[in-house]
Amino acid sequence: MIDLVKNYSVMARRLKKSVIRELLSLTNRPGLISFAGGLPSKELFPAEEIKEITEKIIKDSPGAAFQYGSTEGYPPLKEEIVRLMNGRGYDVRPENILITSASQQSIDMTMKLFIDASDPVFVEQPSYPGGINSMAACGARFVGIPADDDGINTDILEEKLKYMVKEGEHYKLIYTIPDFQNPSGVTLSAERRHRLIELSKIYNFIIVEDTPYRDLRFEGNAPSPLFQMTEPGNVISLHTFSKVFVPGFRLGWICAHPDIIRKLAIMKQSTDLCSSSFTQAITAEYLRRDLLDEHVKVIIPAYRKKRDCMISALEEFMPEGVSWTHPEGGLFLWVRLPEYMDSEKLFYEAINRNVAYVIGSAFSPDGACRNNMRLNFSYPTEEQIREGISRLADLIKSHIGR
Amino acid sequence: MIDLVKNYSVMARRLKKSVIRELLSLTNRPGLISFAGGLPSKELFPAEEIKEITEKIIKDSPGAAFQYGSTEGYPPLKEEIVRLMNGRGYDVRPENILITSASQQSIDMTMKLFIDASDPVFVEQPSYPGGINSMAACGARFVGIPADDDGINTDILEEKLKYMVKEGEHYKLIYTIPDFQNPSGVTLSAERRHRLIELSKIYNFIIVEDTPYRDLRFEGNAPSPLFQMTEPGNVISLHTFSKVFVPGFRLGWICAHPDIIRKLAIMKQSTDLCSSSFTQAITAEYLRRDLLDEHVKVIIPAYRKKRDCMISALEEFMPEGVSWTHPEGGLFLWVRLPEYMDSEKLFYEAINRNVAYVIGSAFSPDGACRNNMRLNFSYPTEEQIREGISRLADLIKSHIGR
Repeated sequence: MIDLVKNYSVMARRLKKSVIRELLSLTNRPGLISFAGGLPSKELFPAEEIKEITEKIIKDSPGAAFQYGSTEGYPPLKEEIVRLMNGRGYDVRPENILITSASQQSIDMTMKLFIDASDPVFVEQPSYPGGINSMAACGARFVGIPADDDGINTDILEEKLKYMVKEGEHYKLIYTIPDFQNPSGVTLSAERRHRLIELSKIYNFIIVEDTPYRDLRFEGNAPSPLFQMTEPGNVISLHTFSKVFVPGFRLGWICAHPDIIRKLAIMKQSTDLCSSSFTQAITAEYLRRDLLDEHVKVIIPAYRKKRDCMISALEEFMPEGVSWTHPEGGLFLWVRLPEYMDSEKLFYEAINRNVAYVIGSAFSPDGACRNNMRLNFSYPTEEQIREGISRLADLIKSHIGR
Repeated sequence: MIDLVKNYSVMARRLKKSVIRELLSLTNRPGLISFAGGLPSKELFPAEEIKEITEKIIKDSPGAAFQYGSTEGYPPLKEEIVRLMNGRGYDVRPENILITSASQQSIDMTMKLFIDASDPVFVEQPSYPGGINSMAACGARFVGIPADDDGINTDILEEKLKYMVKEGEHYKLIYTIPDFQNPSGVTLSAERRHRLIELSKIYNFIIVEDTPYRDLRFEGNAPSPLFQMTEPGNVISLHTFSKVFVPGFRLGWICAHPDIIRKLAIMKQSTDLCSSSFTQAITAEYLRRDLLDEHVKVIIPAYRKKRDCMISALEEFMPEGVSWTHPEGGLFLWVRLPEYMDSEKLFYEAINRNVAYVIGSAFSPDGACRNNMRLNFSYPTEEQIREGISRLADLIKSHIGR
């Protein structure tokens, strides 16, 4: 056999086996309560509506649903997305939209559009591993910016920017998840949003706003999307149907300046030609019937209840020295253990106690956040949440002072 | 607005607007007969079967169909693909299979896995533009190898290999479409297949065998797939459901050595996480019921008739000095005009006469094949084929000797 490793490209050699995947492969055991996934709750999928719409689509427009589609996306779906967004405080047109095969593709193409090997990129610390992996594949050099309960710390970002300008470094972009961030659940405050936009203008960098959870707000007011706060050339906004509809359709979209959309469409053409016409046609009809808004109204109270359940279980069971975020929406919260604990080491014991989470260091390109864990509250039942948090708390207590 | 062009990556700057797309945008006019697409015939989509299966899937396994799936692919679909392939002379196991979001993704990931900027790659001349674009995005340097009615000329390939070894060039792979090639319709002969495999062993290069049309054989015996003729590490075989089932589902697969599959799965994870669980579940059930074989039995005679119709129209209408290939299957044939004609210049006149094709130079990285055109016979009706070839022949006659 040919020596493959010798033949792999530089990009291929940058691809590392995912620690999370390795760890998650251990969670497939009966009785295990998993807080590890980022999955929507399966009981809430709108199966009946999809069944009815699919029948209609196959009957009325099999040509459009089964044939190749345009790279930019199925035009009726683009129209519906425009209507959806403009109903939510955006001001966009079909030329601002590229349909993608869901968020990971949006992130990956956006990063490939801008990042060359050794380019510095600013990322929240912690951040989404899928984003980190796509940037790493391009050879990005990560500049982590700490985040707190108001999101990314814009003062520290400014310091770094000043330093990099002085050093003549050619940074290009910041990757941020401003709404109910993955993993922390934290939302970037209105004040910090304004500061971030100001900085992007002063220091000339692109903001990649990844916002899969924005519609899942349980309470409080949503700050403006970054995309609406500046010229559209400066913010690229990534959206998905995976968290509010069904991930199995693999559909999302990029909202950006038409020049960027045109360039991304050329890239998408050689990436996968087009996204599924079939799932696009179903989704367009689902939106046309205004079913998404109705569905979101069903998901929100269900997830809010689960979040409340998890927060009260944490309050009830966790020992002193352990803290957590209080997300106003989304799927996740972020637990901080005492500094001396290592959530990766604890993970194997957690599995033995039949409870799983994602280790904190998975959310950092340099292995930081070792004393954190990400907990998902959307997928498990309330009963599982209480039991699982109780198991986790027992484990953590057994390590206090060790 | 930020200066985008200044910020684009090297890879992004390599992406060029597609000439074909520009030209095809002119073909959207009433009465135009198009031989330009690569589309399956829309009357033949198995709509009823898909409708029934989709209902069943939504009823029986909404969780699997709507949720995220595994990056490697929906396990029952992998099992069915193994059964399908092994029934067709392959000897593969699920570890050899990675489900992809159709052929273009298979090509793109395979090229990104191996090709670095300036790496020489061997391609048939002519070759598939989607393949050329993916290689170009990686910065490949193209080494075109002429093909004739027996496929790629292995003697010329050997000469080039010898020369490159002498020059110390680090070539990695050849990209070939051995069955009913796009655009030429030609099949690589058994003898040349053996020679290609021998050369790959002597000169140590990987063969990327892209084979979307293999099942669409109208007559004659199929030579062995390259994948079966050597160790699985040396051939990567790309397959799709787009031409034999429905392109709108965006599903294909890569068949390769498990080491390559594992590496590609890591790449796919950061490319799009997973392909659609929904369309995978439907396709798995479609295969489980042995409907694909039945469907192929319906497509083949329909396409054979259309090919026969096109060949006899060409014989009837075309002037001397024009020749064409006689494909034993697939979707396309390849017309050779007199040397002094330029199919791109003729294209605009053809549009005015309400007939379209794809210009020959689109199939070459260096603008060769200017006096060729690719004609698709699967999509138009027989009536359209006769009328369209007659229009084309009139146009060509008007240029004879000019």
